[in-house]
Amino acid sequence: MAGTNSTLNHLTPSKKNKKTPSIILIEPQLGVNIGMAARAMLNCNLTDLRLVSPRDGWPNDEAIAASADASIVIENTRVYQTTHDAIADLELVFATTARSRDMVKRTISPGAAISEVSSFVKTGGKAGVLFGRESKGLKNNDVALADAILSIPLNPSFSSLNLAQAVYTIGYEWISQKKKGINYKKDFIKKFQPANKQNLTQMLNHLEQELDKSGFLRNQEKRPSMLRNLQNMFVRAQLTEQEVRTFRGVIKALASSNKNYKKN
Amino acid sequence: MAGTNSTLNHLTPSKKNKKTPSIILIEPQLGVNIGMAARAMLNCNLTDLRLVSPRDGWPNDEAIAASADASIVIENTRVYQTTHDAIADLELVFATTARSRDMVKRTISPGAAISEVSSFVKTGGKAGVLFGRESKGLKNNDVALADAILSIPLNPSFSSLNLAQAVYTIGYEWISQKKKGINYKKDFIKKFQPANKQNLTQMLNHLEQELDKSGFLRNQEKRPSMLRNLQNMFVRAQLTEQEVRTFRGVIKALASSNKNYKKN
Repeated sequence: MAGTNSTLNHLTPSKKNKKTPSIILIEPQLGVNIGMAARAMLNCNLTDLRLVSPRDGWPNDEAIAASADASIVIENTRVYQTTHDAIADLELVFATTARSRDMVKRTISPGAAISEVSSFVKTGGKAGVLFGRESKGLKNNDVALADAILSIPLNPSFSSLNLAQAVYTIGYEWISQKKKGINYKKDFIKKFQPANKQNLTQMLNHLEQELDKSGFLRNQEKRPSMLRNLQNMFVRAQLTEQEVRTFRGVIKALASSNKNYKKN
Repeated sequence: MAGTNSTLNHLTPSKKNKKTPSIILIEPQLGVNIGMAARAMLNCNLTDLRLVSPRDGWPNDEAIAASADASIVIENTRVYQTTHDAIADLELVFATTARSRDMVKRTISPGAAISEVSSFVKTGGKAGVLFGRESKGLKNNDVALADAILSIPLNPSFSSLNLAQAVYTIGYEWISQKKKGINYKKDFIKKFQPANKQNLTQMLNHLEQELDKSGFLRNQEKRPSMLRNLQNMFVRAQLTEQEVRTFRGVIKALASSNKNYKKN
Protein backbone atom coordinates (compact mmCIF):
# COMPACT_ATOMS: atom_id res chain seq x y z
CA MET A 1 0.00 0.00 0.00
CA ALA A 2 3.08 2.25 -0.21
CA GLY A 3 2.31 5.48 -1.97
CA THR A 4 -1.42 5.41 -1.43
CA ASN A 5 -2.81 8.91 -1.52
CA SER A 6 -3.41 9.77 2.11
CA THR A 7 -6.30 12.08 1.27
CA LEU A 8 -8.20 8.99 0.17
CA ASN A 9 -7.40 6.88 3.18
CA HIS A 10 -11.01 6.70 4.28
CA LEU A 11 -11.38 4.49 1.23
CA THR A 12 -8.77 1.91 2.21
CA PRO A 13 -9.62 -1.42 0.60
CA SER A 14 -9.62 -3.24 3.92
CA LYS A 15 -12.72 -1.33 4.88
CA LYS A 16 -14.33 -0.79 1.50
CA ASN A 17 -13.69 -3.91 -0.57
CA LYS A 18 -15.56 -6.18 1.77
CA LYS A 19 -18.87 -4.64 0.88
CA THR A 20 -18.40 -3.60 -2.74
CA PRO A 21 -18.33 -5.81 -5.82
CA SER A 22 -15.01 -6.63 -7.50
CA ILE A 23 -14.38 -5.70 -11.14
CA ILE A 24 -12.52 -8.39 -13.07
CA LEU A 25 -11.02 -7.51 -16.47
CA ILE A 26 -10.04 -10.61 -18.41
CA GLU A 27 -7.07 -10.21 -20.79
CA PRO A 28 -7.51 -6.43 -21.20
CA GLN A 29 -5.47 -5.15 -24.15
CA LEU A 30 -5.08 -1.38 -23.70
CA GLY A 31 -3.59 0.27 -20.63
CA VAL A 32 -5.67 3.38 -21.29
CA ASN A 33 -8.85 1.35 -20.90
CA ILE A 34 -7.66 -0.20 -17.64
CA GLY A 35 -6.85 3.30 -16.35
CA MET A 36 -10.19 4.76 -17.43
CA ALA A 37 -11.97 1.80 -15.87
CA ALA A 38 -10.10 2.43 -12.58
CA ARG A 39 -11.11 6.10 -12.70
CA ALA A 40 -14.74 5.21 -13.37
CA MET A 41 -14.65 2.72 -10.50
CA LEU A 42 -13.40 5.27 -7.98
CA ASN A 43 -15.94 7.81 -9.32
CA CYS A 44 -18.55 5.32 -8.15
CA ASN A 45 -16.96 4.13 -4.87
CA LEU A 46 -15.67 0.81 -6.24
CA THR A 47 -12.04 -0.01 -5.42
CA ASP A 48 -11.33 -3.71 -6.01
CA LEU A 49 -9.91 -4.18 -9.52
CA ARG A 50 -8.58 -7.56 -10.66
CA LEU A 51 -6.84 -8.31 -13.95
CA VAL A 52 -6.45 -11.67 -15.62
CA SER A 53 -3.35 -11.80 -17.88
CA PRO A 54 -3.30 -8.16 -19.05
CA ARG A 55 -1.70 -8.12 -22.53
CA ASP A 56 0.92 -5.45 -21.73
CA GLY A 57 1.78 -6.61 -18.22
CA TRP A 58 1.32 -4.81 -14.94
CA PRO A 59 1.95 -2.14 -13.68
CA ASN A 60 1.25 -0.21 -16.85
CA ASP A 61 2.20 3.47 -17.32
CA GLU A 62 -0.65 4.18 -19.73
CA ALA A 63 -3.14 2.83 -17.21
CA ILE A 64 -1.70 5.06 -14.49
CA ALA A 65 -1.89 8.14 -16.74
CA ALA A 66 -5.48 7.42 -17.79
CA SER A 67 -6.64 6.76 -14.25
CA ALA A 68 -6.57 10.50 -13.42
CA ASP A 69 -5.08 9.83 -9.96
CA ALA A 70 -7.36 6.96 -9.00
CA SER A 71 -4.23 5.64 -7.29
CA ILE A 72 -6.04 3.71 -4.59
CA VAL A 73 -7.53 1.50 -7.29
CA ILE A 74 -4.40 1.21 -9.44
CA GLU A 75 -2.03 0.46 -6.54
CA ASN A 76 -4.23 -2.27 -5.14
CA THR A 77 -5.01 -3.95 -8.45
CA ARG A 78 -4.30 -7.67 -8.30
CA VAL A 79 -3.17 -9.72 -11.28
CA TYR A 80 -4.10 -13.38 -11.84
CA GLN A 81 -3.13 -16.06 -14.34
CA THR A 82 -6.63 -17.45 -14.86
CA THR A 83 -10.22 -16.33 -14.44
CA HIS A 84 -10.73 -19.20 -12.05
CA ASP A 85 -7.98 -17.83 -9.75
CA ALA A 86 -9.35 -14.28 -9.98
CA ILE A 87 -12.81 -15.27 -8.76
CA ALA A 88 -11.82 -18.05 -6.35
CA ASP A 89 -12.93 -16.09 -3.25
CA LEU A 90 -16.16 -14.75 -4.80
CA GLU A 91 -19.57 -16.33 -4.27
CA LEU A 92 -21.71 -14.44 -6.80
CA VAL A 93 -20.34 -13.62 -10.24
CA PHE A 94 -21.93 -11.94 -13.26
CA ALA A 95 -20.52 -12.10 -16.79
CA THR A 96 -20.97 -8.96 -18.89
CA THR A 97 -21.69 -9.75 -22.51
CA ALA A 98 -23.55 -8.17 -25.38
CA ARG A 99 -23.52 -11.24 -27.62
CA SER A 100 -26.14 -13.83 -26.87
CA ARG A 101 -24.65 -17.14 -25.85
CA ASP A 102 -26.06 -20.58 -26.33
CA MET A 103 -25.97 -21.21 -22.64
CA VAL A 104 -28.70 -22.04 -20.23
CA LYS A 105 -28.11 -19.14 -17.92
CA ARG A 106 -30.20 -16.30 -16.60
CA THR A 107 -29.68 -12.98 -18.43
CA ILE A 108 -30.45 -9.84 -16.47
CA SER A 109 -30.08 -6.07 -16.74
CA PRO A 110 -27.27 -4.13 -15.01
CA GLY A 111 -29.80 -2.65 -12.59
CA ALA A 112 -31.18 -6.05 -11.60
CA ALA A 113 -27.69 -7.51 -11.27
CA ILE A 114 -26.47 -4.70 -9.00
CA SER A 115 -29.61 -4.96 -6.95
CA GLU A 116 -28.77 -8.64 -6.34
CA VAL A 117 -25.13 -7.75 -5.64
CA SER A 118 -26.20 -5.14 -3.08
CA SER A 119 -28.36 -7.53 -1.10
CA PHE A 120 -25.66 -10.15 -1.35
CA VAL A 121 -22.72 -8.08 -0.10
CA LYS A 122 -24.87 -6.55 2.64
CA THR A 123 -25.05 -9.96 4.31
CA GLY A 124 -21.30 -10.51 4.01
CA GLY A 125 -21.18 -12.19 0.58
CA LYS A 126 -18.47 -11.45 -1.98
CA ALA A 127 -19.52 -10.62 -5.52
CA GLY A 128 -17.88 -9.58 -8.77
CA VAL A 129 -18.49 -8.72 -12.41
CA LEU A 130 -16.46 -10.10 -15.33
CA PHE A 131 -15.53 -8.14 -18.47
CA GLY A 132 -13.84 -9.62 -21.52
CA ARG A 133 -11.09 -8.25 -23.72
CA GLU A 134 -11.81 -5.22 -25.91
CA SER A 135 -11.69 -7.06 -29.24
CA LYS A 136 -13.83 -10.10 -28.54
CA GLY A 137 -15.46 -9.87 -25.14
CA LEU A 138 -15.67 -12.86 -22.84
CA LYS A 139 -14.86 -16.38 -23.95
CA ASN A 140 -17.55 -18.99 -23.44
CA ASN A 141 -15.39 -20.72 -20.83
CA ASP A 142 -15.38 -17.54 -18.77
CA VAL A 143 -19.12 -16.96 -19.17
CA ALA A 144 -19.70 -20.53 -17.99
CA LEU A 145 -18.04 -19.69 -14.65
CA ALA A 146 -20.61 -16.98 -13.92
CA ASP A 147 -23.90 -17.34 -12.04
CA ALA A 148 -25.71 -15.19 -14.59
CA ILE A 149 -25.20 -13.06 -17.68
CA LEU A 150 -25.37 -9.30 -17.28
CA SER A 151 -26.54 -7.69 -20.51
CA ILE A 152 -26.15 -3.93 -20.99
CA PRO A 153 -28.98 -2.54 -23.14
CA LEU A 154 -27.43 -1.25 -26.39
CA ASN A 155 -28.31 -0.18 -29.92
CA PRO A 156 -28.26 -3.54 -31.75
CA SER A 157 -26.77 -1.84 -34.84
CA PHE A 158 -23.89 -0.37 -32.84
CA SER A 159 -23.30 -2.44 -29.76
CA SER A 160 -19.52 -2.26 -29.35
CA LEU A 161 -19.22 -0.47 -26.02
CA ASN A 162 -15.85 0.80 -24.83
CA LEU A 163 -14.50 -1.34 -21.94
CA ALA A 164 -14.31 1.59 -19.50
CA GLN A 165 -17.91 2.54 -20.36
CA ALA A 166 -19.00 -1.02 -19.61
CA VAL A 167 -17.25 -0.91 -16.23
CA TYR A 168 -18.79 2.51 -15.56
CA THR A 169 -22.25 1.04 -16.22
CA ILE A 170 -21.76 -1.20 -13.18
CA GLY A 171 -20.32 1.62 -11.09
CA TYR A 172 -23.14 3.94 -12.05
CA GLU A 173 -25.79 1.39 -11.10
CA TRP A 174 -23.95 0.72 -7.84
CA ILE A 175 -23.73 4.35 -6.72
CA SER A 176 -27.20 5.22 -8.07
CA GLN A 177 -28.81 2.44 -6.08
CA LYS A 178 -26.84 3.43 -2.95
CA LYS A 179 -27.98 7.03 -3.36
CA LYS A 180 -31.55 6.18 -4.28
CA GLY A 181 -32.73 7.41 -0.90
CA ILE A 182 -31.52 10.93 -1.60
CA ASN A 183 -34.27 13.35 -2.44
CA TYR A 184 -32.57 15.68 -4.84
CA LYS A 185 -35.26 18.27 -4.38
CA LYS A 186 -34.84 18.29 -0.59
CA ASP A 187 -31.27 19.49 -1.01
CA PHE A 188 -32.62 22.43 -2.89
CA ILE A 189 -35.03 23.21 -0.07
CA LYS A 190 -32.40 22.80 2.63
CA LYS A 191 -30.06 25.17 0.87
CA PHE A 192 -32.50 27.97 0.26
CA GLN A 193 -35.23 29.19 2.56
CA PRO A 194 -38.44 28.95 0.58
CA ALA A 195 -40.89 31.82 0.93
CA ASN A 196 -43.84 30.97 3.12
CA LYS A 197 -47.35 31.52 1.83
CA GLN A 198 -47.86 34.69 3.85
CA ASN A 199 -44.78 36.31 2.31
CA LEU A 200 -46.00 35.27 -1.11
CA THR A 201 -49.52 36.59 -0.51
CA GLN A 202 -48.16 39.91 0.73
CA MET A 203 -46.03 40.18 -2.38
CA LEU A 204 -49.01 39.39 -4.60
CA ASN A 205 -51.16 41.93 -2.73
CA HIS A 206 -48.42 44.49 -3.25
CA LEU A 207 -48.37 43.68 -6.95
CA GLU A 208 -52.16 43.84 -7.16
CA GLN A 209 -52.25 47.31 -5.53
CA GLU A 210 -49.69 48.66 -7.92
CA LEU A 211 -51.39 47.09 -10.93
CA ASP A 212 -54.68 48.59 -9.77
CA LYS A 213 -53.04 52.00 -9.51
CA SER A 214 -51.59 51.59 -13.00
CA GLY A 215 -54.98 50.76 -14.49
CA PHE A 216 -53.74 47.32 -15.66
CA LEU A 217 -56.66 45.60 -13.89
CA ARG A 218 -59.40 48.02 -14.89
CA ASN A 219 -61.45 45.42 -16.78
CA GLN A 220 -63.59 44.20 -13.84
CA GLU A 221 -64.77 41.12 -15.72
CA LYS A 222 -61.25 39.89 -16.49
CA ARG A 223 -59.73 41.09 -13.21
CA PRO A 224 -60.21 37.86 -11.17
CA SER A 225 -58.77 35.55 -13.83
CA MET A 226 -55.84 37.90 -14.49
CA LEU A 227 -54.97 37.88 -10.80
CA ARG A 228 -55.34 34.14 -10.57
CA ASN A 229 -53.03 33.64 -13.54
CA LEU A 230 -50.40 35.85 -11.94
CA GLN A 231 -50.72 34.01 -8.68
CA ASN A 232 -50.34 30.63 -10.38
CA MET A 233 -47.25 31.86 -12.15
CA PHE A 234 -45.52 32.90 -8.94
CA VAL A 235 -46.61 29.85 -6.98
CA ARG A 236 -45.23 27.60 -9.69
CA ALA A 237 -41.87 29.37 -9.49
CA GLN A 238 -41.43 28.19 -5.87
CA LEU A 239 -39.84 31.46 -4.82
CA THR A 240 -37.39 31.71 -1.95
CA GLU A 241 -37.73 34.27 0.83
CA GLN A 242 -34.91 36.30 -0.68
CA GLU A 243 -36.52 36.26 -4.12
CA VAL A 244 -39.80 37.54 -2.68
CA ARG A 245 -37.91 40.45 -1.11
CA THR A 246 -36.15 41.06 -4.42
CA PHE A 247 -39.37 41.00 -6.36
CA ARG A 248 -41.06 43.39 -3.95
CA GLY A 249 -38.16 45.71 -4.68
CA VAL A 250 -38.85 45.24 -8.39
CA ILE A 251 -42.55 46.09 -7.96
CA LYS A 252 -41.68 49.15 -5.92
CA ALA A 253 -39.06 50.31 -8.39
CA LEU A 254 -41.33 49.81 -11.41
CA ALA A 255 -44.26 51.51 -9.67
CA SER A 256 -42.23 54.56 -8.76
CA SER A 257 -40.74 54.89 -12.24
CA ASN A 258 -44.27 54.53 -13.57
CA LYS A 259 -45.35 57.45 -11.40
CA ASN A 260 -42.46 59.49 -12.75
CA TYR A 261 -43.48 58.48 -16.26
CA LYS A 262 -47.04 59.70 -15.65
CA LYS A 263 -45.75 62.97 -14.24
CA ASN A 264 -43.73 63.73 -17.35
CA MET B 1 -24.84 13.23 -45.31
CA ALA B 2 -22.20 12.12 -47.85
CA GLY B 3 -20.27 9.12 -46.58
CA THR B 4 -22.85 8.02 -44.07
CA ASN B 5 -22.55 4.33 -43.45
CA SER B 6 -25.42 2.83 -45.39
CA THR B 7 -25.78 -0.06 -42.98
CA LEU B 8 -26.93 2.46 -40.41
CA ASN B 9 -29.37 4.31 -42.62
CA HIS B 10 -32.34 3.26 -40.54
CA LEU B 11 -30.93 5.70 -38.03
CA THR B 12 -30.93 8.78 -40.25
CA PRO B 13 -31.17 11.87 -38.07
CA SER B 14 -34.25 13.15 -39.86
CA LYS B 15 -36.19 10.25 -38.44
CA LYS B 16 -34.40 9.77 -35.17
CA ASN B 17 -33.43 13.21 -33.87
CA LYS B 18 -36.99 14.38 -33.58
CA LYS B 19 -37.70 12.05 -30.73
CA THR B 20 -34.34 11.78 -28.99
CA PRO B 21 -32.61 14.34 -26.79
CA SER B 22 -29.71 16.40 -28.15
CA ILE B 23 -26.28 16.27 -26.51
CA ILE B 24 -24.58 19.67 -26.31
CA LEU B 25 -20.87 19.83 -25.47
CA ILE B 26 -19.78 23.35 -24.54
CA GLU B 27 -16.17 24.25 -25.39
CA PRO B 28 -14.93 20.63 -25.37
CA GLN B 29 -11.13 20.51 -25.29
CA LEU B 30 -10.09 17.03 -26.41
CA GLY B 31 -11.07 15.47 -29.74
CA VAL B 32 -10.78 12.00 -28.21
CA ASN B 33 -13.49 12.87 -25.69
CA ILE B 34 -15.81 14.17 -28.42
CA GLY B 35 -15.25 10.96 -30.38
CA MET B 36 -15.84 8.72 -27.39
CA ALA B 37 -18.97 10.70 -26.54
CA ALA B 38 -20.24 10.19 -30.12
CA ARG B 39 -19.57 6.45 -29.84
CA ALA B 40 -21.38 6.26 -26.49
CA MET B 41 -24.32 8.19 -27.98
CA LEU B 42 -24.74 5.80 -30.90
CA ASN B 43 -24.35 2.83 -28.50
CA CYS B 44 -27.50 4.18 -26.87
CA ASN B 45 -29.49 5.29 -29.94
CA LEU B 46 -28.74 9.02 -29.58
CA THR B 47 -27.58 10.79 -32.73
CA ASP B 48 -27.87 14.57 -32.37
CA LEU B 49 -24.53 15.98 -31.18
CA ARG B 50 -23.96 19.75 -30.97
CA LEU B 51 -20.69 21.49 -30.12
CA VAL B 52 -20.23 25.02 -28.87
CA SER B 53 -16.80 26.44 -29.81
CA PRO B 54 -14.74 23.22 -29.67
CA ARG B 55 -11.15 24.20 -28.74
CA ASP B 56 -9.47 22.40 -31.63
CA GLY B 57 -12.03 23.24 -34.31
CA TRP B 58 -14.25 20.89 -36.29
CA PRO B 59 -14.03 18.39 -37.96
CA ASN B 60 -11.40 16.84 -35.72
CA ASP B 61 -9.35 13.75 -36.72
CA GLU B 62 -8.90 12.57 -33.14
CA ALA B 63 -12.64 12.68 -32.62
CA ILE B 64 -13.22 10.62 -35.75
CA ALA B 65 -10.64 8.02 -34.66
CA ALA B 66 -12.08 7.75 -31.14
CA SER B 67 -15.66 7.46 -32.38
CA ALA B 68 -15.11 3.86 -33.52
CA ASP B 69 -17.12 4.41 -36.71
CA ALA B 70 -20.04 6.25 -35.15
CA SER B 71 -19.98 8.19 -38.40
CA ILE B 72 -23.67 9.04 -38.40
CA VAL B 73 -23.13 11.06 -35.24
CA ILE B 74 -19.81 12.63 -36.24
CA GLU B 75 -20.94 13.63 -39.73
CA ASN B 76 -24.09 15.29 -38.53
CA THR B 77 -22.51 17.13 -35.61
CA ARG B 78 -23.38 20.82 -35.69
CA VAL B 79 -21.09 23.57 -34.39
CA TYR B 80 -22.32 26.79 -32.78
CA GLN B 81 -20.70 29.98 -31.53
CA THR B 82 -22.71 30.28 -28.32
CA THR B 83 -24.70 28.03 -26.00
CA HIS B 84 -27.71 30.20 -26.68
CA ASP B 85 -27.49 29.44 -30.42
CA ALA B 86 -26.98 25.72 -29.76
CA ILE B 87 -30.17 25.37 -27.73
CA ALA B 88 -32.32 27.91 -29.57
CA ASP B 89 -34.72 25.28 -30.94
CA LEU B 90 -34.94 23.24 -27.71
CA GLU B 91 -37.74 23.59 -25.19
CA LEU B 92 -36.45 21.53 -22.27
CA VAL B 93 -32.78 21.71 -21.30
CA PHE B 94 -30.85 20.10 -18.45
CA ALA B 95 -27.41 21.22 -17.29
CA THR B 96 -25.07 18.44 -16.11
CA THR B 97 -22.95 19.51 -13.20
CA ALA B 98 -21.29 17.89 -10.20
CA ARG B 99 -20.49 21.11 -8.35
CA SER B 100 -23.33 22.62 -6.40
CA ARG B 101 -24.29 26.04 -7.67
CA ASP B 102 -25.75 28.90 -5.76
CA MET B 103 -28.73 28.97 -8.04
CA VAL B 104 -32.36 28.52 -7.30
CA LYS B 105 -32.93 25.67 -9.63
CA ARG B 106 -34.27 22.18 -9.33
CA THR B 107 -31.56 19.48 -9.10
CA ILE B 108 -32.52 15.98 -10.23
CA SER B 109 -30.95 12.60 -10.91
CA PRO B 110 -30.08 11.39 -14.44
CA GLY B 111 -32.90 8.86 -14.25
CA ALA B 112 -35.49 11.45 -13.30
CA ALA B 113 -34.22 13.85 -15.96
CA ILE B 114 -34.41 11.26 -18.73
CA SER B 115 -37.84 10.23 -17.57
CA GLU B 116 -38.97 13.87 -18.05
CA VAL B 117 -37.18 14.03 -21.40
CA SER B 118 -38.93 10.85 -22.56
CA SER B 119 -42.41 12.12 -21.78
CA PHE B 120 -41.52 15.47 -23.30
CA VAL B 121 -40.19 14.24 -26.64
CA LYS B 122 -43.01 11.72 -26.92
CA THR B 123 -45.44 14.61 -27.33
CA GLY B 124 -43.27 16.32 -29.94
CA GLY B 125 -41.11 18.46 -27.64
CA LYS B 126 -37.39 18.99 -28.22
CA ALA B 127 -35.02 18.43 -25.34
CA GLY B 128 -31.27 18.47 -24.72
CA VAL B 129 -28.57 18.02 -22.11
CA LEU B 130 -25.61 20.40 -21.62
CA PHE B 131 -22.08 19.31 -20.68
CA GLY B 132 -19.23 21.69 -19.82
CA ARG B 133 -15.58 21.60 -20.78
CA GLU B 134 -13.34 18.88 -19.32
CA SER B 135 -11.32 21.15 -17.03
CA LYS B 136 -14.00 23.23 -15.38
CA GLY B 137 -17.45 21.98 -16.28
CA LEU B 138 -20.26 24.37 -17.12
CA LYS B 139 -20.05 28.09 -16.49
CA ASN B 140 -22.76 29.61 -14.34
CA ASN B 141 -24.08 31.52 -17.35
CA ASP B 142 -24.68 28.22 -19.16
CA VAL B 143 -26.29 26.58 -16.14
CA ALA B 144 -28.61 29.57 -15.87
CA LEU B 145 -29.98 28.79 -19.36
CA ALA B 146 -31.17 25.35 -18.26
CA ASP B 147 -34.55 24.38 -16.87
CA ALA B 148 -32.96 22.19 -14.21
CA ILE B 149 -29.65 20.81 -12.99
CA LEU B 150 -28.88 17.18 -13.69
CA SER B 151 -26.56 15.79 -11.04
CA ILE B 152 -24.80 12.44 -11.61
CA PRO B 153 -24.31 10.57 -8.32
CA LEU B 154 -20.55 10.34 -7.68
CA ASN B 155 -18.02 9.62 -4.95
CA PRO B 156 -17.64 13.06 -3.33
CA SER B 157 -13.89 12.42 -2.80
CA PHE B 158 -13.34 11.63 -6.48
CA SER B 159 -16.01 13.28 -8.55
CA SER B 160 -14.16 14.23 -11.73
CA LEU B 161 -15.98 12.14 -14.31
CA ASN B 162 -14.60 11.80 -17.84
CA LEU B 163 -16.70 13.77 -20.36
CA ALA B 164 -17.57 10.72 -22.45
CA GLN B 165 -18.64 8.85 -19.31
CA ALA B 166 -20.94 11.74 -18.39
CA VAL B 167 -22.51 11.65 -21.87
CA TYR B 168 -22.84 7.86 -21.63
CA THR B 169 -24.73 8.27 -18.34
CA ILE B 170 -27.47 10.05 -20.26
CA GLY B 171 -27.38 7.56 -23.11
CA TYR B 172 -27.52 4.63 -20.70
CA GLU B 173 -30.53 6.07 -18.88
CA TRP B 174 -32.19 6.75 -22.23
CA ILE B 175 -31.80 3.25 -23.65
CA SER B 176 -32.45 1.57 -20.27
CA GLN B 177 -35.75 3.38 -19.88
CA LYS B 178 -36.73 2.60 -23.49
CA LYS B 179 -35.97 -1.07 -22.90
CA LYS B 180 -37.54 -1.23 -19.45
CA GLY B 181 -40.38 -3.25 -20.83
CA ILE B 182 -38.09 -6.07 -21.88
CA ASN B 183 -38.22 -9.03 -19.58
CA TYR B 184 -34.69 -10.35 -19.73
CA LYS B 185 -35.78 -13.65 -18.28
CA LYS B 186 -38.41 -14.18 -20.96
CA ASP B 187 -35.73 -14.21 -23.65
CA PHE B 188 -34.12 -17.08 -21.80
CA ILE B 189 -37.38 -18.98 -21.73
CA LYS B 190 -38.13 -18.31 -25.38
CA LYS B 191 -34.74 -19.60 -26.44
CA PHE B 192 -34.76 -22.80 -24.44
CA GLN B 193 -37.66 -25.12 -23.75
CA PRO B 194 -37.95 -25.35 -19.98
CA ALA B 195 -38.72 -28.76 -18.56
CA ASN B 196 -42.28 -29.14 -17.41
CA LYS B 197 -43.04 -30.33 -13.90
CA GLN B 198 -43.93 -33.84 -15.03
CA ASN B 199 -40.56 -34.29 -16.72
CA LEU B 200 -38.87 -33.00 -13.61
CA THR B 201 -40.87 -35.28 -11.31
CA GLN B 202 -40.08 -38.30 -13.48
CA MET B 203 -36.43 -37.43 -13.32
CA LEU B 204 -36.57 -37.05 -9.55
CA ASN B 205 -38.42 -40.37 -9.22
CA HIS B 206 -35.76 -42.00 -11.34
CA LEU B 207 -33.08 -40.51 -9.08
CA GLU B 208 -34.93 -41.62 -5.96
CA GLN B 209 -35.20 -45.22 -7.21
CA GLU B 210 -31.51 -45.39 -7.97
CA LEU B 211 -30.59 -43.79 -4.65
CA ASP B 212 -32.82 -46.29 -2.85
CA LYS B 213 -31.10 -49.15 -4.67
CA SER B 214 -27.71 -47.74 -3.68
CA GLY B 215 -28.67 -47.48 -0.01
CA PHE B 216 -28.13 -43.73 0.03
CA LEU B 217 -31.62 -43.18 1.50
CA ARG B 218 -31.61 -45.98 3.99
CA ASN B 219 -32.02 -43.70 7.03
CA GLN B 220 -35.83 -43.65 7.13
CA GLU B 221 -35.97 -40.68 9.50
CA LYS B 222 -33.83 -38.45 7.27
CA ARG B 223 -35.19 -39.82 3.99
CA PRO B 224 -38.03 -37.29 3.46
CA SER B 225 -35.88 -34.21 4.12
CA MET B 226 -33.05 -35.55 1.96
CA LEU B 227 -35.45 -36.03 -0.95
CA ARG B 228 -36.97 -32.60 -0.39
CA ASN B 229 -33.54 -30.98 -0.44
CA LEU B 230 -32.69 -32.72 -3.69
CA GLN B 231 -35.97 -31.64 -5.19
CA ASN B 232 -35.43 -28.03 -4.15
CA MET B 233 -31.99 -28.04 -5.69
CA PHE B 234 -33.26 -29.21 -9.07
CA VAL B 235 -36.31 -26.95 -9.06
CA ARG B 236 -34.10 -23.96 -8.34
CA ALA B 237 -31.89 -24.83 -11.29
CA GLN B 238 -34.82 -24.24 -13.70
CA LEU B 239 -33.76 -27.11 -15.93
CA THR B 240 -34.59 -27.25 -19.60
CA GLU B 241 -36.20 -30.26 -21.25
CA GLN B 242 -32.86 -31.17 -22.81
CA GLU B 243 -31.08 -30.93 -19.49
CA VAL B 244 -33.59 -33.26 -17.87
CA ARG B 245 -32.93 -35.81 -20.61
CA THR B 246 -29.20 -35.35 -20.09
CA PHE B 247 -29.45 -35.76 -16.35
CA ARG B 248 -31.55 -38.90 -16.67
CA GLY B 249 -28.71 -40.22 -18.80
CA VAL B 250 -26.32 -39.29 -15.99
CA ILE B 251 -28.41 -41.13 -13.38
CA LYS B 252 -28.62 -44.19 -15.59
CA ALA B 253 -24.91 -44.14 -16.31
CA LEU B 254 -23.95 -43.70 -12.67
CA ALA B 255 -26.38 -46.38 -11.54
CA SER B 256 -25.12 -48.93 -14.03
CA SER B 257 -21.47 -48.22 -13.21
CA ASN B 258 -22.45 -48.56 -9.55
CA LYS B 259 -23.88 -52.01 -10.30
CA ASN B 260 -20.65 -52.90 -12.03
CA TYR B 261 -18.76 -51.63 -9.02
CA LYS B 262 -20.82 -53.83 -6.68
CA LYS B 263 -20.31 -56.81 -8.93
CA ASN B 264 -16.55 -56.48 -8.80
